[in-house]
Amino acid sequence: MDGIFPVTDEDLIKQTLRLAQKGRGKVNPNPMVGAIIVKNGEIIARGYHRRFGEVHAEVDCINSAREDLAGSTLYVNLEPCSHHGKQPPCVQKIVDAGIEKVVFGSRDPNPAVNGRGVQFLQEKGLLVKAGVLIEACNELNQAFFKHVTTGVPFVTLKIAQTLDGKIAAADGGSKWITGDAAQVKTHRMRSKHDAILAGIGTVLSDDPQLNVRHIRGPSPARVIVDSKLRIPLQAKILNDDLVHKTIIATAKSCDTRRAVEIKNKGADVWQISRSKHGGLNLKELCQKLGDAGIVSILIEGGSGIFSSFLRERLVDRLELFLAGKVLGSGLTAMRELGINSLNESIMFKNMSCRKVGTDILISADVEKPINLNCLQVNNQQRTTLN
Amino acid sequence: MDGIFPVTDEDLIKQTLRLAQKGRGKVNPNPMVGAIIVKNGEIIARGYHRRFGEVHAEVDCINSAREDLAGSTLYVNLEPCSHHGKQPPCVQKIVDAGIEKVVFGSRDPNPAVNGRGVQFLQEKGLLVKAGVLIEACNELNQAFFKHVTTGVPFVTLKIAQTLDGKIAAADGGSKWITGDAAQVKTHRMRSKHDAILAGIGTVLSDDPQLNVRHIRGPSPARVIVDSKLRIPLQAKILNDDLVHKTIIATAKSCDTRRAVEIKNKGADVWQISRSKHGGLNLKELCQKLGDAGIVSILIEGGSGIFSSFLRERLVDRLELFLAGKVLGSGLTAMRELGINSLNESIMFKNMSCRKVGTDILISADVEKPINLNCLQVNNQQRTTLN
Repeated sequence: MDGIFPVTDEDLIKQTLRLAQKGRGKVNPNPMVGAIIVKNGEIIARGYHRRFGEVHAEVDCINSAREDLAGSTLYVNLEPCSHHGKQPPCVQKIVDAGIEKVVFGSRDPNPAVNGRGVQFLQEKGLLVKAGVLIEACNELNQAFFKHVTTGVPFVTLKIAQTLDGKIAAADGGSKWITGDAAQVKTHRMRSKHDAILAGIGTVLSDDPQLNVRHIRGPSPARVIVDSKLRIPLQAKILNDDLVHKTIIATAKSCDTRRAVEIKNKGADVWQISRSKHGGLNLKELCQKLGDAGIVSILIEGGSGIFSSFLRERLVDRLELFLAGKVLGSGLTAMRELGINSLNESIMFKNMSCRKVGTDILISADVEKPINLNCLQVNNQQRTTLN
Repeated sequence: MDGIFPVTDEDLIKQTLRLAQKGRGKVNPNPMVGAIIVKNGEIIARGYHRRFGEVHAEVDCINSAREDLAGSTLYVNLEPCSHHGKQPPCVQKIVDAGIEKVVFGSRDPNPAVNGRGVQFLQEKGLLVKAGVLIEACNELNQAFFKHVTTGVPFVTLKIAQTLDGKIAAADGGSKWITGDAAQVKTHRMRSKHDAILAGIGTVLSDDPQLNVRHIRGPSPARVIVDSKLRIPLQAKILNDDLVHKTIIATAKSCDTRRAVEIKNKGADVWQISRSKHGGLNLKELCQKLGDAGIVSILIEGGSGIFSSFLRERLVDRLELFLAGKVLGSGLTAMRELGINSLNESIMFKNMSCRKVGTDILISADVEKPINLNCLQVNNQQRTTLN
């Protein structure tokens, strides 16, 4: 019996987060949202956003209720929407249902929503409590928040290196620096992203599949940065039967006959401007991926790609596997980044670490000068409405 | 009231470990040992090895008891000794006291003791239980175990680096890669070692004090590897008032007049053979430090010293601070180690990680082919005596 009280608002928002995650991989580029309705101290309805284009979590929850909602409280991890998109605004549905109070976590950063949902509900006489368990709520949808506010995907670098920062030995060997558990964890990461991105060097040296095999889960799109279209037509990622998109990002000056051959293998070929450094303009690539509804990207290598994305300040998060090995010489994960002194270094915050099998996984967010105000809760609003 | 039972043997051995640590920094090169006596379900005496040359923990404990010990049980983290050293053998004292049962953790790896303590006690009709909480017991005295079995100190590398393995930026700046909490933790590490070792490069670039300031604790001896006696006479470590030994390890061919000047500042100058690589013979240095009663060394830098000790397979443990920074270029913690492929890499085991302030500390043991059998408990003995 899970309706036993007293439970806290935090407990209930935590439950909405669990519900929300059922939509992972299916709701993009929408956020993952879960909702619960409580009446007389009992949970009487649950719902979540199941698939892009279908009803929002709040409506799914309201629809599933079998009793009168008058006087009830709605819990939801994200501020209910107040604008017409694919769906009519949730706030109207909430008011119509007779719900008395709304408790939510993240404020919706969508400029068309931010704060207006709260305002609408308050004007209709509902009590509103915002910002409950806000950090966990923000984290669940951090990729969505970035995409909806900037148009570009949330970018995670995944690196597997030795304790001294090497991703391959002097003889080029890199299989396997990390162990089995790290492989499984990597596949879990892949399944939580909309796209995996790698450089042509990685394809030429490893001929990877870049799909999800070690766990059950959706396989993301694959993006290969290949300015000269060097990808072999027999590369695994051009020849597997899996139904997932493969995008080859190349230069505008590419060999068009080659591009046609690649397209004939079922892949998309995107022509991107050159950057001033000679490679592809990665900002433009990210923008195009964002336009195509790609909300999150996992970058898997190699060092040229890691370094270029970091140098262009396009990285949001780092997932760094460290194997209990030291090589001394070999290929470093990072190349020259144009950094001369410690205070110019690229900074990370919110570092955390855990064992993954025999390896260690360090997770961290890139510290950025940009300030996504939308992710902060206005404290005044938070307290006056409690 | 801490005598309340039931408590397990493991609980009581844990208490002996806490008592044992009161001797840290004072009992070297002896092990840290704590003891407890339980009679009729109550702790009736506690003791520990307080200082080198004073009575052993078992005797300290027996001496502190105010009642008859007949029928009591002695708990101790290390197998009681059976040989005459600075003190008469503890096993005789235990028998004389009328103790009925002895429960201990680590087996004493000292060839003069190993197994004989147990044998003596059993012959006298006492019950013996060995190997309780053995991993924690072995860890507390791992430096002692290495020193007593090999004659050389237990060597720990302490490195503070960026996520991409740099210990200084391209401009040479290395202050401070890690934060305040890592500094404090470093001073805590220092106070748990008999000596800190650094290369002359570190002295010339940082003029460090290499003492314990940020916490209260003993300051260890300081060892500087300086084959050409380049240390400035005004270096801080030759001019502080603290009462701790400073050893300058140099080549046999050193400038003797300079050596005298350094000795006049109060430091010792040790002349060591050259290795075939041109530096000092570090094995010989470690042997000499071991002979001088130095049981544990903390190596603090720089990359030449880190790499030489690793290359010579003289390292037992790694304490690796990782700051949330990426530099790309700069000074790497490791230099060329003569390793060409992944399966030649220096391997670490027992990796663990934790946050220290905003940084991460990874601790790991070097995986070695040598097998210290003395640290294993013979299972047969363990079970027959329970």
